[in-house]
Amino acid sequence: MRVLLDKRRVYLDYNATTPPAEFLNRQIQEWLPLWGNPSSVHQNGQKARSLFWSAKVHLAKFIGCHPLELIATSGGSEANNMAIRGLYEKYFLQDSKRNEIIISAVEHPSVKSPIESLKAKGMKIRYIPVSMQGELDLSVYESTLSDKTFLASIMYANNETGNLFPVSRLVKMAHKVGAFFHCDAVQALGKIHFNLHKLGVDTASFSAHKFYSLKGTGVLYCRKGLLPDNLIRGGPQERNRRAGTENVLGMACFGAVAQRGEEILRQFQGIGKLRDKMEQHILSHIGGAKVLGQKGQRLYNTSCIYIPGVQGETLLMNMDLKGYSFSVGSACHSGSLNPSGVLIAMGLNEEEARSAIRISLGLGVFKEELDRFLSDLIDSIKRIQSFPQNQNFQNEL
Amino acid sequence: MRVLLDKRRVYLDYNATTPPAEFLNRQIQEWLPLWGNPSSVHQNGQKARSLFWSAKVHLAKFIGCHPLELIATSGGSEANNMAIRGLYEKYFLQDSKRNEIIISAVEHPSVKSPIESLKAKGMKIRYIPVSMQGELDLSVYESTLSDKTFLASIMYANNETGNLFPVSRLVKMAHKVGAFFHCDAVQALGKIHFNLHKLGVDTASFSAHKFYSLKGTGVLYCRKGLLPDNLIRGGPQERNRRAGTENVLGMACFGAVAQRGEEILRQFQGIGKLRDKMEQHILSHIGGAKVLGQKGQRLYNTSCIYIPGVQGETLLMNMDLKGYSFSVGSACHSGSLNPSGVLIAMGLNEEEARSAIRISLGLGVFKEELDRFLSDLIDSIKRIQSFPQNQNFQNEL
Repeated sequence: MRVLLDKRRVYLDYNATTPPAEFLNRQIQEWLPLWGNPSSVHQNGQKARSLFWSAKVHLAKFIGCHPLELIATSGGSEANNMAIRGLYEKYFLQDSKRNEIIISAVEHPSVKSPIESLKAKGMKIRYIPVSMQGELDLSVYESTLSDKTFLASIMYANNETGNLFPVSRLVKMAHKVGAFFHCDAVQALGKIHFNLHKLGVDTASFSAHKFYSLKGTGVLYCRKGLLPDNLIRGGPQERNRRAGTENVLGMACFGAVAQRGEEILRQFQGIGKLRDKMEQHILSHIGGAKVLGQKGQRLYNTSCIYIPGVQGETLLMNMDLKGYSFSVGSACHSGSLNPSGVLIAMGLNEEEARSAIRISLGLGVFKEELDRFLSDLIDSIKRIQSFPQNQNFQNEL
Repeated sequence: MRVLLDKRRVYLDYNATTPPAEFLNRQIQEWLPLWGNPSSVHQNGQKARSLFWSAKVHLAKFIGCHPLELIATSGGSEANNMAIRGLYEKYFLQDSKRNEIIISAVEHPSVKSPIESLKAKGMKIRYIPVSMQGELDLSVYESTLSDKTFLASIMYANNETGNLFPVSRLVKMAHKVGAFFHCDAVQALGKIHFNLHKLGVDTASFSAHKFYSLKGTGVLYCRKGLLPDNLIRGGPQERNRRAGTENVLGMACFGAVAQRGEEILRQFQGIGKLRDKMEQHILSHIGGAKVLGQKGQRLYNTSCIYIPGVQGETLLMNMDLKGYSFSVGSACHSGSLNPSGVLIAMGLNEEEARSAIRISLGLGVFKEELDRFLSDLIDSIKRIQSFPQNQNFQNEL
């Protein structure tokens, strides 16, 4: 599958967002005339309804669930909020003796923040630490789970380091004590193979724009029989689970890319080799550089690299001018002075965390441009490391 | 402005959703390559950020507010939920002696439902009746307002009848007792001229797909200084007011149509004459037919018509086969056996409400096709009225 890339730049920030698949350009022109409201009984409505439904069928097939278990949302953040708030509103009041929620120390803000907002409503939050290698402490997880646990919410893959968590095992342990399990699977989609029914999660979140499709579209998987309270109330759309006129075009694009999901996963296998070579190159040319979370299980595409004596942000801006896009931590932190919470949780201090960059690959990244990137990256790092004023600036901070 | 219409059909359901502007087809191809994450510091991100911001500037200019007062949402339903829930969570706890919310009896489900969900949390809901002409009972509104009133939420224009409410006056009365005022203005956008700062509302909701743009996009206006609690928590997007990667393409389209807002309003003036002629034609050919809410202030484009002895749904399906799209009540009620709550609130009984159809016009509707529609509509009505089995079926209900 080809993606929509500007050949004048090298994009290496796929975990922030992916370029859309090239074929969507043509598809959108074909689908734009199907603009009816899916709730309308007439043909304009029914054509849109059928397009929307097909999208769910394709998506469900790729991620291993039933299409009726999918609720279209405006993205991963809404899906995470909907699962967490919805489970709380619906089930906590039924069994308020369960007043603990377990999350990893490296969850995405759209999981962490709605969960932490429940503290004011009587919930206790238990954080499971991760090691310097980005591995979840399973023994702490197990000993924290109890008949007080309402929900465990652990991501599938970390957006900053790419570290993978053993979801299937974590689910079994949570279910053993009768807790719900939510999985933020936004970063896993299109990068590793999985089947939701086999994983056994209760709810899981996905985002279209991290999967070669459009922004403003996501999905919450909610297993059959579970009925979290609505986050958005109103009309009976999505079988009364999420009000609002359906984003037909967004979902149609999401479904069409999912239809090519297996092809994407196959293409993606080559990415791992590119990533590993890139890491070796950086480690061998930059003294003291470290790949964070390297020994833990990781996505094939993600490199989070500590580069001594260099502010990530300075390097990023330097390389941006040369036509390269990557990031420091997650896109959410960009422009903020706070260092990444994920890296702090992994044991880095603030200065170290500020010296980390994230390079994330995807379809459309090839060896030639990565070689060019590496050559310019090493040059830039060496130049920045040699600036005395940069050293001074760092000392002042 | 031309819109994307299938020339083989006549679409008369603009209040359910509008066809997108034709120029968007070209624009989308131009904007699709600007797929960066607006939170990213590099050029891919900054180009997307700038496109997103321009969209808000265009929109703010058209509706009379500052672009920073606009929060992008996934649509009107999210915007309504966000305002209501957000004001409640943020300000109710500060002043919980104010425990009443006032709404009209004809609010949209995405206003009514989140407000009614607050009953379980100690809020009392006061409903302001409307007359058979769709006019809000201002004396009841005034006498219901008190220092107990937390929020008044009254729509600008009703989706089913097109009836307009005197928002500016309603706001002043609400503010006099210190209450917030939320306005669901989804149906007003592009149909009547207004200026949010002059109206004085605290919050107001808008939807792109009712305004010749894409589904999955909307906006909450939130006046400067007001900070409702987040509905969707997580990243710092939208100045910490709404988490989630921004729907750049959806907002760019919304903004581009708003840029042509004055042109749309000018074009729209002709619609009123077409509507009035259509109503006269139906009333003069169908004995006992009534235009609902006719004497109240109304949008130029909307006709809600009671047709005796005809189930709206039967007529709709009949006309659908002939290539015409309109609706019975709102799209949300389609397929449901419940008659429209709006018409019941206006004093119709269930059978009468089931005999009402809604015809709503917009850019792209011309005299020739409306004449053709009227001729086929009168034929269909007369045929349905003459069916003895239809009469029996109705009696059995």
